[in-house]
Amino acid sequence: MKKHNFSAGPCVLPQEVLKKAADAVLDFDNGLSLIEISHRSKPFVDVMENARALVLELLGLEGKGYKALFLQGGASTQFLMVALNLLEKRAGYLNTGTWANKAIKEAKIFDDVYEVASSKNANYNYIPKGYEIPSEYDYFHCTSNNTIFGTQMKEFPKCPIPMVCDMSSDIFSRQLDFSKFDLIYAGAQKNMGPAGATLVVVREEILGKVSRHIPSMMDYKIHLNKSSMFNTPPVFAVYTSMLTLEWLKNLGGIPAIEELNEKKSTLMYSEIDINPLFKGYAAKEDRSTMNATFTLENDDLKETFDTMWKEAGINGLNGHRSVGGYRASMYNALHLDSVKTLVEVMSELERKA
Amino acid sequence: MKKHNFSAGPCVLPQEVLKKAADAVLDFDNGLSLIEISHRSKPFVDVMENARALVLELLGLEGKGYKALFLQGGASTQFLMVALNLLEKRAGYLNTGTWANKAIKEAKIFDDVYEVASSKNANYNYIPKGYEIPSEYDYFHCTSNNTIFGTQMKEFPKCPIPMVCDMSSDIFSRQLDFSKFDLIYAGAQKNMGPAGATLVVVREEILGKVSRHIPSMMDYKIHLNKSSMFNTPPVFAVYTSMLTLEWLKNLGGIPAIEELNEKKSTLMYSEIDINPLFKGYAAKEDRSTMNATFTLENDDLKETFDTMWKEAGINGLNGHRSVGGYRASMYNALHLDSVKTLVEVMSELERKA
Repeated sequence: MKKHNFSAGPCVLPQEVLKKAADAVLDFDNGLSLIEISHRSKPFVDVMENARALVLELLGLEGKGYKALFLQGGASTQFLMVALNLLEKRAGYLNTGTWANKAIKEAKIFDDVYEVASSKNANYNYIPKGYEIPSEYDYFHCTSNNTIFGTQMKEFPKCPIPMVCDMSSDIFSRQLDFSKFDLIYAGAQKNMGPAGATLVVVREEILGKVSRHIPSMMDYKIHLNKSSMFNTPPVFAVYTSMLTLEWLKNLGGIPAIEELNEKKSTLMYSEIDINPLFKGYAAKEDRSTMNATFTLENDDLKETFDTMWKEAGINGLNGHRSVGGYRASMYNALHLDSVKTLVEVMSELERKA
Repeated sequence: MKKHNFSAGPCVLPQEVLKKAADAVLDFDNGLSLIEISHRSKPFVDVMENARALVLELLGLEGKGYKALFLQGGASTQFLMVALNLLEKRAGYLNTGTWANKAIKEAKIFDDVYEVASSKNANYNYIPKGYEIPSEYDYFHCTSNNTIFGTQMKEFPKCPIPMVCDMSSDIFSRQLDFSKFDLIYAGAQKNMGPAGATLVVVREEILGKVSRHIPSMMDYKIHLNKSSMFNTPPVFAVYTSMLTLEWLKNLGGIPAIEELNEKKSTLMYSEIDINPLFKGYAAKEDRSTMNATFTLENDDLKETFDTMWKEAGINGLNGHRSVGGYRASMYNALHLDSVKTLVEVMSELERKA
């Protein structure tokens, strides 16, 4: 039976990417596996450079002073690296949930951090708007999409200082003017590839302005000077990310995937809104196209509903404990068919109930 | 033609491991790929716990107060983490080459560091001996095997303070009393698996003794408290490491692989010593069983020799620029046949020359 993988991350990846990645584990270069060749060999250096170039091409950032890095340690390490590399006096953070809180916590180690706005009062079910960003701060930090609460920033503020964005869960999913941002980071394991690689896209001119000594592995400039190969990179995760970026480019890039993502999320939220058994969690204007969070109006139906979606081949639909209920993650590689299947199960529950 | 992969790392891995890893990329759990399931799902939590347990079992450290972690960032990140977690006043480092120097450099960010001994005077072609380790220091740090120079510590000092060892390039290759060490770390990409995972084995009681605030991702205690899942782990690299550890266990564990490694290195060094065209780089008593470094006595033969070994299917034999010449890396998964092939080529060169 076909699986419909709604996992929140790691999550569904394109089948053709999985096939090519598996082939490379067996034979990548003249009978040698991808994971047993030197990372300094030409075949792998080409992979790294191709992946870095595809990132800038897909984001429309070629020739605009940006460079891409593939690092390790996930977004959790970026919470620290951003502060180490950019925080001199004070930074402003937008608090939109769990991940923003973690970013704030790590930055606070180095200095006072100012929350420009927060939606904590409503358990993060909306995105704050109309806040001011003080122009004397070092940078402004926001989280573009909040997987746990199912909210997404639709507009980004006018920002008089460098804008840093954690795009872990919606990068490459929608068209934005990415040149508005000075530093974008993202764990690979949603729209880009397997866990184990972290993408950083940075406008070089914002670096080198803090007075602290930055440890080598935490220093963006060192990684840039070594073309993202200061130390041995996570070879498999970088290669598989490159394959996913190639898949996206061949599909028509971000405009094409955005259209598909809009179709999936429109279908999903329509069902949530018209089906009286379900209730959406996030404020309508801030609903994420990546993660739809919803609850059952009547918890007595939980067992029946859970059995039904599992029997339909659906996987990974349970909500995060901070919200409860359900979460349908609809990342780039999820087929529209999978959303149709879920929506049919929800309609069927309504007919039965 | 069969490939003989002498790469210094990433390097040769067992064929059966590569096959199982490739299979898991296609289908690991009920039709879902290893890299698209949640890391919090039971199948992956089992992988992580199995890998952590196998490490302690193979090293003979079960029930002795140690825990194993699979982190990201390579040994290069450990240079920093060791100092952040253990360095309060002063630490002693043994300087045996490039990697030791990098470890010293990162530790110096936090405090003064004392080199207990160094072999820099002879371009690191031997391991210093007979040095004192001051008992008032926080810890002693050494590098068990030096890939670039081809030296290996055969004895470890009596150490009155916690002993920290970078075993990136010879862990799981030979029998040692691993309980002499308080913290062992190793990038996976030699004897354990693909690049992208870093093993840390730590005696828990040495932690929590420094006064600084440690950032979350840099804090061993946080990773221990979260069972090596504080954030999304590098799923593929951890799984493939687990497969390699299972392969080693089925082979008979470290005693069995040590016997094979001895055979390979004895054969290799015998040829280097009896063949007048070649000269070993490292001091004989400190020769590494993992990386044999050697040069041609007459550089005019370089082109002929290079052509001959490449024609024999040999890969990755060029030496590091710090030493020049050649480096035959003979990690656990390299077959004795591969060393035989190289030795035959060296003998053939002698006959021809």
